[in-house]
Amino acid sequence: MSTSSNSPYHHGNLRQALLEAALVILEQQGEAGLGLRDLARAVGVSPAAPYRHFDSRAALLEALAVTGFQRFAARMEAVAASRPHDPMAAMGKTYVVFALQNANLFRLMFSPQLKKDSRPGLRMAADAAFDTLRHLVGGDLENGRVRALAAWAKVHGLAVLLLDGQIAIRSGEDTEALVEEIISSL
Amino acid sequence: MSTSSNSPYHHGNLRQALLEAALVILEQQGEAGLGLRDLARAVGVSPAAPYRHFDSRAALLEALAVTGFQRFAARMEAVAASRPHDPMAAMGKTYVVFALQNANLFRLMFSPQLKKDSRPGLRMAADAAFDTLRHLVGGDLENGRVRALAAWAKVHGLAVLLLDGQIAIRSGEDTEALVEEIISSL
Repeated sequence: MSTSSNSPYHHGNLRQALLEAALVILEQQGEAGLGLRDLARAVGVSPAAPYRHFDSRAALLEALAVTGFQRFAARMEAVAASRPHDPMAAMGKTYVVFALQNANLFRLMFSPQLKKDSRPGLRMAADAAFDTLRHLVGGDLENGRVRALAAWAKVHGLAVLLLDGQIAIRSGEDTEALVEEIISSL
Repeated sequence: MSTSSNSPYHHGNLRQALLEAALVILEQQGEAGLGLRDLARAVGVSPAAPYRHFDSRAALLEALAVTGFQRFAARMEAVAASRPHDPMAAMGKTYVVFALQNANLFRLMFSPQLKKDSRPGLRMAADAAFDTLRHLVGGDLENGRVRALAAWAKVHGLAVLLLDGQIAIRSGEDTEALVEEIISSL
């Protein structure tokens, strides 16, 4: 089914096109720049078309956060599958680099406004993203929960401090190399 | 010098009264609720009076963040002075508990909007607050920098994840006890 007579999109790929365009707007302009009407304009469909896929702006933001956790999970799984010498260090670096490369998406994924408790789809996507990390530290076992939370806090704190410009990077210093050093020292 | 004929404040204590009132508004309503006019009303002075102490809303926010770092530094010093059995754990817990007890102030202190590089007073207050922690992990030495950043990332991440409601606290679970467990396991 096509969304309108002159639209190049079919129902399924319009949703994907909207999400891709929204991800670009999110990184370029931040969450404040994201509205369903702007998105319709960016994709070249009628102002009403996005509403067939997203009830509201909140639903769009939730779908973006879910997409973020899915991409994050795919990266974590790829790293684990590559059997790195030091899995914790490799996954920690992947976590921080993902945050730095997708700053606004990362902020959205962890936004206190998007309450995961009332959004089962988001909760599932977030849990799936952490499964690889949790399994690695044994956090799927009761006694591993505290260790999993500790490992998460470390890399999340590093990501947030870097994103928020709180860690003074020295002139000429390579941020990724510093991230590796900090993670290894933990 | 009095600020106005019917004001109960003298120049010096009006600034302090404005800051105290602003801290209360900040915690109750968040940063968005803080304006110099609202503040004047809360303290019972003329709308123009706060401008004698703060050029702008940005100057007020900066002064609040400086106050936050000063109180934070005082707590860290008090903990260090009490010679705890495990200084790192004690200071880590103090860091996280300060964040939980002063959620909006903590967010303001680490807001990317308040660029420390262009605000020497804020930079100094922040550096002073971390001096105790830095000294403890040897971060005032060149080779201690990475260790100091790692220790900071751990506790900051834990504070942010808790503040943002990302860590699922179990029903009946004591948050401070969980914080202690997580910090000890690091």
